[in-house]
Amino acid sequence: MIVRPPVNWLRLLFVWRGSVLPAILPQLLLMLFVSTVALETGGRIAGAKLPLDTAAFPLLGVSLAIFLAFRNNASYQRFTEARLCWGQLLIAARALTSQAISCFAAQPAALNQALFQRRLIAVVYALKHQLRGTDPMPELAGLLDAPELALLRGRSFLPVALLDAVRQMLVQAALRPPARGEVLMVLDRQVNALGAAVGACERISSTPIPYGYGVLLHRTVYLYCFLLPFGLVDAIGVATPLITVFVAYTFFALEAIAEQVAEPFGTAPNCLALNALTRQIERSVCEQYGVPMPAALQPDAGFRID
Amino acid sequence: MIVRPPVNWLRLLFVWRGSVLPAILPQLLLMLFVSTVALETGGRIAGAKLPLDTAAFPLLGVSLAIFLAFRNNASYQRFTEARLCWGQLLIAARALTSQAISCFAAQPAALNQALFQRRLIAVVYALKHQLRGTDPMPELAGLLDAPELALLRGRSFLPVALLDAVRQMLVQAALRPPARGEVLMVLDRQVNALGAAVGACERISSTPIPYGYGVLLHRTVYLYCFLLPFGLVDAIGVATPLITVFVAYTFFALEAIAEQVAEPFGTAPNCLALNALTRQIERSVCEQYGVPMPAALQPDAGFRID
Amino acid sequence: MIVRPPVNWLRLLFVWRGSVLPAILPQLLLMLFVSTVALETGGRIAGAKLPLDTAAFPLLGVSLAIFLAFRNNASYQRFTEARLCWGQLLIAARALTSQAISCFAAQPAALNQALFQRRLIAVVYALKHQLRGTDPMPELAGLLDAPELALLRGRSFLPVALLDAVRQMLVQAALRPPARGEVLMVLDRQVNALGAAVGACERISSTPIPYGYGVLLHRTVYLYCFLLPFGLVDAIGVATPLITVFVAYTFFALEAIAEQVAEPFGTAPNCLALNALTRQIERSVCEQYGVPMPAALQPDAGFRID
Amino acid sequence: MIVRPPVNWLRLLFVWRGSVLPAILPQLLLMLFVSTVALETGGRIAGAKLPLDTAAFPLLGVSLAIFLAFRNNASYQRFTEARLCWGQLLIAARALTSQAISCFAAQPAALNQALFQRRLIAVVYALKHQLRGTDPMPELAGLLDAPELALLRGRSFLPVALLDAVRQMLVQAALRPPARGEVLMVLDRQVNALGAAVGACERISSTPIPYGYGVLLHRTVYLYCFLLPFGLVDAIGVATPLITVFVAYTFFALEAIAEQVAEPFGTAPNCLALNALTRQIERSVCEQYGVPMPAALQPDAGFRID
Amino acid sequence: MIVRPPVNWLRLLFVWRGSVLPAILPQLLLMLFVSTVALETGGRIAGAKLPLDTAAFPLLGVSLAIFLAFRNNASYQRFTEARLCWGQLLIAARALTSQAISCFAAQPAALNQALFQRRLIAVVYALKHQLRGTDPMPELAGLLDAPELALLRGRSFLPVALLDAVRQMLVQAALRPPARGEVLMVLDRQVNALGAAVGACERISSTPIPYGYGVLLHRTVYLYCFLLPFGLVDAIGVATPLITVFVAYTFFALEAIAEQVAEPFGTAPNCLALNALTRQIERSVCEQYGVPMPAALQPDAGFRID
Repeated sequence: MIVRPPVNWLRLLFVWRGSVLPAILPQLLLMLFVSTVALETGGRIAGAKLPLDTAAFPLLGVSLAIFLAFRNNASYQRFTEARLCWGQLLIAARALTSQAISCFAAQPAALNQALFQRRLIAVVYALKHQLRGTDPMPELAGLLDAPELALLRGRSFLPVALLDAVRQMLVQAALRPPARGEVLMVLDRQVNALGAAVGACERISSTPIPYGYGVLLHRTVYLYCFLLPFGLVDAIGVATPLITVFVAYTFFALEAIAEQVAEPFGTAPNCLALNALTRQIERSVCEQYGVPMPAALQPDAGFRID
Repeated sequence: MIVRPPVNWLRLLFVWRGSVLPAILPQLLLMLFVSTVALETGGRIAGAKLPLDTAAFPLLGVSLAIFLAFRNNASYQRFTEARLCWGQLLIAARALTSQAISCFAAQPAALNQALFQRRLIAVVYALKHQLRGTDPMPELAGLLDAPELALLRGRSFLPVALLDAVRQMLVQAALRPPARGEVLMVLDRQVNALGAAVGACERISSTPIPYGYGVLLHRTVYLYCFLLPFGLVDAIGVATPLITVFVAYTFFALEAIAEQVAEPFGTAPNCLALNALTRQIERSVCEQYGVPMPAALQPDAGFRID
Repeated sequence: MIVRPPVNWLRLLFVWRGSVLPAILPQLLLMLFVSTVALETGGRIAGAKLPLDTAAFPLLGVSLAIFLAFRNNASYQRFTEARLCWGQLLIAARALTSQAISCFAAQPAALNQALFQRRLIAVVYALKHQLRGTDPMPELAGLLDAPELALLRGRSFLPVALLDAVRQMLVQAALRPPARGEVLMVLDRQVNALGAAVGACERISSTPIPYGYGVLLHRTVYLYCFLLPFGLVDAIGVATPLITVFVAYTFFALEAIAEQVAEPFGTAPNCLALNALTRQIERSVCEQYGVPMPAALQPDAGFRID
Repeated sequence: MIVRPPVNWLRLLFVWRGSVLPAILPQLLLMLFVSTVALETGGRIAGAKLPLDTAAFPLLGVSLAIFLAFRNNASYQRFTEARLCWGQLLIAARALTSQAISCFAAQPAALNQALFQRRLIAVVYALKHQLRGTDPMPELAGLLDAPELALLRGRSFLPVALLDAVRQMLVQAALRPPARGEVLMVLDRQVNALGAAVGACERISSTPIPYGYGVLLHRTVYLYCFLLPFGLVDAIGVATPLITVFVAYTFFALEAIAEQVAEPFGTAPNCLALNALTRQIERSVCEQYGVPMPAALQPDAGFRID
Repeated sequence: MIVRPPVNWLRLLFVWRGSVLPAILPQLLLMLFVSTVALETGGRIAGAKLPLDTAAFPLLGVSLAIFLAFRNNASYQRFTEARLCWGQLLIAARALTSQAISCFAAQPAALNQALFQRRLIAVVYALKHQLRGTDPMPELAGLLDAPELALLRGRSFLPVALLDAVRQMLVQAALRPPARGEVLMVLDRQVNALGAAVGACERISSTPIPYGYGVLLHRTVYLYCFLLPFGLVDAIGVATPLITVFVAYTFFALEAIAEQVAEPFGTAPNCLALNALTRQIERSVCEQYGVPMPAALQPDAGFRID
């Protein structure tokens, strides 16, 4: 995620960091080359004039608009879904912490609060690593003791295993007299909210936007852009490369951003900052327990935070 | 579902597997033929000039854009709905498993955990087969014993019958002292979540997008494409077949993808990978119980997973 | 609802049943007449040339696109809402059945299961008839006995009355020792889900899309279509009637489908098949109780099912 | 709300009641005047030709389409939100009534059912008056006795005060042995559903669409329409006033409807019929209690119901 | 937020307060300058003609429409999300107040109602200050006593800390015999609703719209507007500055409003009026308790309320 203090409208035109321009530069240079060739040859390919005119392009514009708008909306919807899941993690982790503290305030023996707190945070860390395909063990080693870690090694669904351990602690405590049965229900609901967020994150990862859409959009955009200079050259002459590259920039850039946003758990600049979100949940739970909390993550020199 | 490692932008232009091109090739060849005829005859039909010009097509573009965008969005919404249902199945199956393990940990006699686990997985398998219209018995035979299978044979709503059996086990266990009544509520909620996902999947199957939309879109797209070369030929001459086929490709391909996506439980390349999702749920529940779990499904050589 | 096996792309162009063409044929013939007149007179009205050209129409296209897209989306949203309500009816009826069977399995005297089952099904039938404005008594007579029917006659909110009776039975059974209080909550939630679906269906009927939208769209579409041939005749000559009727077809047909879909409980070809959905709920509840179930409804010769 | 029996397509073109034409007539006449002047002067202002041509307008069309579509969708979303709130009121009022009758059937002394019923209906009436800014006292006087009315006079949040009184009665009854504690939860949920609907209605009133949008749209529409005749006059001559007024009608009318729909609790023709909805809730609750119910509201001669 | 009584359509054209015109005036003047230069030079840059014509702009219009519509919708969605959160705060605060009063009516010793009330209101104030980045202590000092304030000073998640304190009071009271366990559940649900609203507000702040979108839109809009006069000058001559500035106004203004709306907790004119909403919640809770309530906030002379 790019977190950048607002810049004025003029500087924003020339921003490099946070822009997707670097990622699409090769294709744009290619378009510059193609349109210059079209300009030089007067729109001829191997000596034969390709008699396109600007009237042909709005016909393609209908499809292009639908594909681009759909692709972008579907991608952003996935980003929003991911945002909601991580918001739910924060909300449920806090509620569960608050309930565990309040409900067992009079029964200190019922629940090992310190262990519960560390396992709860471990759920979030494990989920982050599962979604990013990274190794959770180094970070979990700071939260769980060695025997527990050993048991978890090799698990395919690590956040689920940790959440099950959290539930087990809470159910045991809640079913132990003189605790009231209602405490079970109250806690169970939040554990389920955590489980729902975990499952929803996996769902985002395991059901991408159908592949056919991407192929169709990609082909349409590129073919359109390759034909464009041949359609423009008779009408706007030397301005052809300028307009062609500008049009191509808008399409390629949108495709590039949409691709990043559609996999919101990645590490591209426009993905969610899972590390920061994980840290925020940890910090909040720590503060609720009144234990020292780690510092919040800060953006790096490139205004990135991941 | 197509699961393909990212390819670079150039190769993506020529991807065959995962594209809908094969499915619409005949129609595209027909369009190539029609537009070549229009080019040869200079836009004449039986000797009479069809005096269309490009100005007529944007008038049709309004309708076409609305129909295509609507059709595609409505289809994708059904795909999303289906994704959410299967996500809910995963979430609820895990939560129920975790609850059943925790809540009856101190009462091993109350619930036959092994039977419960197999029935729970059987619900998901039965749903998959119902949605795909395939025979569930071979796969269920690995989960349930013969007498139970015999009772289920011929059932119209097999997942419901299995879920009722799951509920019966849980209610009996939860109402049996010294279990607390709250356990009933906690379990009941997750059983209902499973039932809701089952019913929602049936709803997707039983209420398709109203038939009239498909007919209207289909006719508009085809008539538009057939007229197009006659409108273009005077303006762009030899480029007519190129542009016509390109425009037709974008429309036909979107219609084809939307058709696949609208029936998300089918087996077309852009449908949901129900087999993989079912297996994922089975694997997760098995891991929660600590029993050996089957391997995850892998994409085949054509990058498909179903 | 039209349920038609897939036909190939060519036959789909000439489908009659399931298309809205019959409903808009008179208006299309009128458009054919108007455009032929415009062609014959060269765009003159009473001898005076109406100097429209094609440039004027895209200006209207903006409004037209917004009105058509909005109207269609708002209509389809109502259709979707209705789908969800009937899905919820199915889900809640099943869950309630399953709960009633499980929770009172050990207390056969607490609940008259046969009566409960028939009343539950009667709720759904009563709702269907209320939404369609038909007489529920013939169908209810097969489910309820004469004294109960007599009490219900003349009720304005029949499904509510039946649902209240269902609730009364369940609350009595759940509050009767030794039943646990939690059973009350578990059942109450599903009764409320049924009530919510009933209320939501009434809401769809009682709050139509604001009338002004329909008038505005209708006027814009018709005025546009009447002016169109005068704008086209100079540019495309003899092709004017073809294009005019084609454009008019797309607008009139979309308006016609949207009108059907906006009242999803009607009996037009693109409405929901309430009879089939009602029967499906009945069949599922019957199968859960293990009693003989009626046959599923089948589409008629015209591929319709209502 | 306009409730009008369907009229045929021809009559619908000339409908006056239910159309927003009356509200925008002055502006349309002004546009007729402006475009006639432009026609007479050949597009000159103070002798100087304003050299607009039709090519300039599609550039503005992009913004206009986005503003109009957004404004309309945001407005309709508020209308939909309001519909859902009133649907929820109906659903929750019925469920609460049904629960209160069933749960206290065996404890007639626990709850004064008649008082409860009148207070419940009073909540809905009070909400209606709060939303419309009218005086609730006359209608409440028919439901509540004088001392209670006196206490309520001057309250800023009258529906909340009444709902609190409803809750108080129910909590007292539910906490009074031998009532089971679960009854409290069951009732509390529906009281909260009513409170949520009340709060959501206030939210609609207190957070309008940001003011800037309306100003921006308004200016764009009017400036566009004022410039339009100068752009059209060279191309379409005497048809300029016709097309200008037609285009202006579509924009002004959409803006006018969207304005009405955005404040769904108002009394304009396209707002919600709060009186009818309130009456419907009252009727349903009365029927549930088996007491005489008032007649349903009917549309007046102008097909309006408010 | 701008709360302005309706003005007639003519005055609305010239509204200054509530319009974003002041914020974009510099850029508009620049566009006026650029387009005047283009007019004077006949579209030449450094003596060389930039041969753009109007046909090139619709090609860019596709991207522009998608970017603007997306940006605006995504921004408004965040505004709506924020509205819903604050609506939920109001609803949950009222419900909790009402429950606390009713449930402990017979046990005055269980809960310190006055302290509870002040802490509940403090949660809302603390949230407002956290979202706006302002110092909460001055306002909290009127609600909480000094020792409690001292404990809260330096907290990173102040609303969470206060909500935890609220929960603690309620759980203690609810677990204290003879209170019924169900009271715990009833209260817990509303505390969680408050916590969910707090977390959702933080989510809005911590996950902005991906940065890349803003950069892409900004560049496209400005480059388009700078090129526009060169494309228009041959076609519309002296009208070029008028149309250029008009087009630029619509784009810049939409970008400016969308930017304000996307950060709904800010203090720009189109943000949410958090002070007014906070006060409304305070007033409602005070009225429920029957204690004197502060006056509602009123718009200032510029029709603003924040």
